Amino acid sequence: MIYSPEDLARINDNPLYRTIGIQVLSCADGNAVSTMSPLPEVCWPTAGQPHGGILFTQIDTTTAFAALSTAEAGSGCATVDSGIQYAAPARHAPFRCEATTLRRTGRTVFVRAEITDARGEIVALCQATFRILSRD
Amino acid sequence: MIYSPEDLARINDNPLYRTIGIQVLSCADGNAVSTMSPLPEVCWPTAGQPHGGILFTQIDTTTAFAALSTAEAGSGCATVDSGIQYAAPARHAPFRCEATTLRRTGRTVFVRAEITDARGEIVALCQATFRILSRD
Amino acid sequence: MIYSPEDLARINDNPLYRTIGIQVLSCADGNAVSTMSPLPEVCWPTAGQPHGGILFTQIDTTTAFAALSTAEAGSGCATVDSGIQYAAPARHAPFRCEATTLRRTGRTVFVRAEITDARGEIVALCQATFRILSRD
Amino acid sequence: MIYSPEDLARINDNPLYRTIGIQVLSCADGNAVSTMSPLPEVCWPTAGQPHGGILFTQIDTTTAFAALSTAEAGSGCATVDSGIQYAAPARHAPFRCEATTLRRTGRTVFVRAEITDARGEIVALCQATFRILSRD
Repeated sequence: MIYSPEDLARINDNPLYRTIGIQVLSCADGNAVSTMSPLPEVCWPTAGQPHGGILFTQIDTTTAFAALSTAEAGSGCATVDSGIQYAAPARHAPFRCEATTLRRTGRTVFVRAEITDARGEIVALCQATFRILSRD
Repeated sequence: MIYSPEDLARINDNPLYRTIGIQVLSCADGNAVSTMSPLPEVCWPTAGQPHGGILFTQIDTTTAFAALSTAEAGSGCATVDSGIQYAAPARHAPFRCEATTLRRTGRTVFVRAEITDARGEIVALCQATFRILSRD
Repeated sequence: MIYSPEDLARINDNPLYRTIGIQVLSCADGNAVSTMSPLPEVCWPTAGQPHGGILFTQIDTTTAFAALSTAEAGSGCATVDSGIQYAAPARHAPFRCEATTLRRTGRTVFVRAEITDARGEIVALCQATFRILSRD
Repeated sequence: MIYSPEDLARINDNPLYRTIGIQVLSCADGNAVSTMSPLPEVCWPTAGQPHGGILFTQIDTTTAFAALSTAEAGSGCATVDSGIQYAAPARHAPFRCEATTLRRTGRTVFVRAEITDARGEIVALCQATFRILSRD
């Protein structure tokens, strides 16, 4: 399925994203893209650099939307597990995360993602496994 | 090394932990323990349940302190990579994270962690790799 | 379920284990133990040290039996994903692998394992996710 | 560095690859490709399907050569950790593994790989971290 601009505006208007500084830019057919301009509160212990857990949060939410966009409207999804590699210090905001579904087998979805900084350098890599959940 | 109560108080007084609701309870000799009472802002999309990225943030910071406590005072450490399994929904705060160093080889430290909920059930599992950095 | 000595003898009599040098020693109630005395053919590129993929094969089969022993007789299981840390060089055979189920949620099973060498030192760590499959 | 056909022939003439059925096809500048026609001995418990550990062995050796090809001649490398996702049953040999270095930071190399079957379908995905070792 494809998320419309209205869908994305509704998703982005949530307390978690506002607290961190995340926006989902697009989500369709197994792919999702987000941007993060991290607020000072989540840049610790090094000023200007988001905590590793915050980078992971951007990846986790972006990969989840990528997985969810392989399912029919009204489905949910749960992260089964996820692995992140911290390839380089995250010094130059904004951070762009691109997530791609590589394969879906039954209700299990296999997704990869990368975060690049404002200079286009990779700072984090991820592979994650999701389960699609029915709503009923 | 062993972190004193004063060390922990200084660590815990930071904007990231205040924004999420994390406190490190102990850190010594390769082990660390934290607790998390997640603020409503980071419990999205399900009220009362911290986002998966927030659970990971608790694990990442706790495993990092476990790794760092294997090093001499004044060292730093960087997460090389980390894998999290979401074993069950995280419904019952507070969440306790226990991190244990299994092995250190040179400057590379191998750490595991579990998060348990208020009922003592495991909700998340982690294994992570760190590099110890000299300060000079 | 508990695997009897006859069950284990039947499992251990297979071409893969004979080619590598693996034996499952016990398997019951979510836990499994194996030993590996790697044949020279699988100790490459360093003589006397099993290839990293061979250490992983010991872990993968041991964690799979640990997961399978949480299910009723006649079930199957599939590895969804698995992460291995190579904590130290694997120089001293035989290698003992202990796998422990930490949690089962529905048909998804979360397992950890360690390989220790003949001196009792940890050489590899793993966390893996399995799905239990019905036979019918 | 680039491995010549003579280099590859020398690498491929080893007991591990002969036991399993692996050949490295190319290795240069951070990328490596291999093929695997698994021998019957390593196709267990399902005839015709390589064990999960054997698929991992193909990935581990291919990602290691990809990492090593970022270093000067005479270097070694060690897998720090590696995560594999089993995206689908591996039914149709031969299996092709392509490994790509995404980033090298100091002596740490971050590599991804996929295994596709004879029909071009993805059966396994990997992300791995390596350390480059000097020979002296």
